[in-house]
Amino acid sequence: MSTQNDTTGHGPLRGVRILEIGHFVAAPFCCRLLADLGADVIKIEPPGGDPVRGWGEQRDGHSLWWSVHGRNKRSVAVNLKSKDGRQVALDLARSCDVVVENFRPGHLARLGLSDEMLRGENPDRVIAHVSGFGQDGPYRDRPAFGVIGEAIGGMRYLTNHPPGESDLPPVRVGVSIGDSLAGMYAAIGILAALAGRGTEGAAARTIDVALTESVLSLMEGMLPEYSALGQVREPAGSRIKSTAPTSAYPSAEGDWVLIAANSDLLFGRLCELINRPDLLTDPRYATNEARVANVEPLDAAITAWSKVLSTADLLAVLDRAQVPSSKIFTIADCAEDPQYRARGMVREVSDPALGPLLHPGIVPRINEAPGGIRWTGPEIGAHTEEVLTELLGYNNAQLKALRDGGAVA
Amino acid sequence: MSTQNDTTGHGPLRGVRILEIGHFVAAPFCCRLLADLGADVIKIEPPGGDPVRGWGEQRDGHSLWWSVHGRNKRSVAVNLKSKDGRQVALDLARSCDVVVENFRPGHLARLGLSDEMLRGENPDRVIAHVSGFGQDGPYRDRPAFGVIGEAIGGMRYLTNHPPGESDLPPVRVGVSIGDSLAGMYAAIGILAALAGRGTEGAAARTIDVALTESVLSLMEGMLPEYSALGQVREPAGSRIKSTAPTSAYPSAEGDWVLIAANSDLLFGRLCELINRPDLLTDPRYATNEARVANVEPLDAAITAWSKVLSTADLLAVLDRAQVPSSKIFTIADCAEDPQYRARGMVREVSDPALGPLLHPGIVPRINEAPGGIRWTGPEIGAHTEEVLTELLGYNNAQLKALRDGGAVA
Repeated sequence: MSTQNDTTGHGPLRGVRILEIGHFVAAPFCCRLLADLGADVIKIEPPGGDPVRGWGEQRDGHSLWWSVHGRNKRSVAVNLKSKDGRQVALDLARSCDVVVENFRPGHLARLGLSDEMLRGENPDRVIAHVSGFGQDGPYRDRPAFGVIGEAIGGMRYLTNHPPGESDLPPVRVGVSIGDSLAGMYAAIGILAALAGRGTEGAAARTIDVALTESVLSLMEGMLPEYSALGQVREPAGSRIKSTAPTSAYPSAEGDWVLIAANSDLLFGRLCELINRPDLLTDPRYATNEARVANVEPLDAAITAWSKVLSTADLLAVLDRAQVPSSKIFTIADCAEDPQYRARGMVREVSDPALGPLLHPGIVPRINEAPGGIRWTGPEIGAHTEEVLTELLGYNNAQLKALRDGGAVA
Repeated sequence: MSTQNDTTGHGPLRGVRILEIGHFVAAPFCCRLLADLGADVIKIEPPGGDPVRGWGEQRDGHSLWWSVHGRNKRSVAVNLKSKDGRQVALDLARSCDVVVENFRPGHLARLGLSDEMLRGENPDRVIAHVSGFGQDGPYRDRPAFGVIGEAIGGMRYLTNHPPGESDLPPVRVGVSIGDSLAGMYAAIGILAALAGRGTEGAAARTIDVALTESVLSLMEGMLPEYSALGQVREPAGSRIKSTAPTSAYPSAEGDWVLIAANSDLLFGRLCELINRPDLLTDPRYATNEARVANVEPLDAAITAWSKVLSTADLLAVLDRAQVPSSKIFTIADCAEDPQYRARGMVREVSDPALGPLLHPGIVPRINEAPGGIRWTGPEIGAHTEEVLTELLGYNNAQLKALRDGGAVA
């Protein structure tokens, strides 16, 4: 399955053209997902580049994240501070089926790029706005940071050890989870609007996604539980509150291995494996309820066994005993995993600026039209001339005038 | 915006009919998102009910999570162990545009419900499979647990304090994040296939989403960074590796307050606020790079200030000084938040089994066709008669025979 840069570009969204007026993570992630599935995404990028090009590890001044984050998109460098640049943006929007943006609410309208202007003669053009708090309401003008959106969405409270177990603060998820969720919901909204065309649902065309709300939507049954019972979900650390034993246990090297032996059958197997048949007849561990109540000494017994075995030995004996378990993967483990390789979910590409690299594959996989990695994240403005010529019919003199005037680059 | 059960059901997916042969979280979450946006989702449920009805907090034997998880769906109780039950499932599939399932790979085919059988005369029927590791590859038959998928996707490694800072294991995100991501990607795949109808992308019809891959897809630039530089992303706890100060700090009550003062300007404001102007002239904190190198004493100084102020006072003074900050919200804070209320993202509904409750709103918000909460999670088989009559044309005698034979309930 693993391929060098796939040039077919065949995906379900082939023929859909999208203008990205986005920066940082949320809107660009949305558009990357759609580009992976075959859409023609044109990214309007400031001549100085999307700030995310400066994030994460670099090699020779090139961002490795960008290789993924910008892939399959056409970069058109446009200066939105210039009147002519704004006209180019408007003309591009009017040649697209969809516009996606994540400036502060109201910012584009103040630049003359309101929804109405972007739609022009085509009232059906789909426009997706992504922001921290949404396009209306009392907090709409608050600045949107991922970490703050995750906190207000209820997630950060839960990525912690149980109350009293640690003095350390709750951890971040470690990736831009709030932005990614908002980008995914924007993609769902855009595709729902497109899918609804020609049906009873055809009116849909304006999507308004907030980071905070995207996170809140994942909080399971917590709102009804709180409103009916006054119950506030507390963090549970590495364990699951209602069942035991299931947690991460250390190996001799200090790796963490997940072990989920939280049924009577699996617990029996684990007790044999760790040479503690006495636990099986100990009333403290006789039922799941008892094990939950006595989880501290139980986990200590499992840890006493796990921490003297190598990770490889631990995983091998757990697998042989058919106790569900897994190493906690680092990105190096992901890179080497045979399942990811077999399904093209870790694949080799060649980036013109960075050479051979691993990229994540295309999710979701769609068998008949899986999309592909047509190209890696382009240089700033790599497609300015191509796009303005092809879509707007500009000639060389017009392009030169725009360039000389600082409107495009 | 907050409404009692909205009966309009108007959303972009009105007119799209979906059969859910799903259980637990991933496929049902996918279908709930699509139902929120107006699709007619028919859930085939075993006569004993979806196991998720037993999860989380209950009142009078009714699951509060279910009120959300099952909302806007029609429940048809079908026994897939019965030959007649399987025929009902097949007939229902053939009256739908889309089928979504999350059994172990191959399980439905062994029951006579292969993709080919489910499609019957309609080769365009969209079928989405959700599983732990995907429908092929060497690990396809491994059992799918959310926690294991999250670990193999690379997320669990990162929800931890930095190496050496804590002996405690990495925490769970605290919600079923892997399942939710897989459900969202399944929704994206289904909608992309539907949106592509009538275009060059029309071939798409079989979606194959894995939990592991859904998580891996959020790992930013880590695969290219690892492959090009050998760099393995390590957990960073509550901080951000490349910038300081930004973390969660304790208040007098022991709440955690996020403070992001990681620019020179914001850092200056914070130093005044905490009455430590000396920090501003201390070479250890003169630049972002220096602050990152000396983040321990810096955070200790901020903590010495924060921990004697009440949460309300902390937030008020930070807000007045325009230093980005937020309380880390519990679900109780989410429930009371005026922005969520203003946008209908926390809304009151009335559940026939549970009474008045709060539900999360509809994400993504689509202005012209926002969907709605038509009803809360139904009882098992609440719609068996209605659906079998309406879609399959069964009469009372046929229904009785199926019920008496244990095929439906």
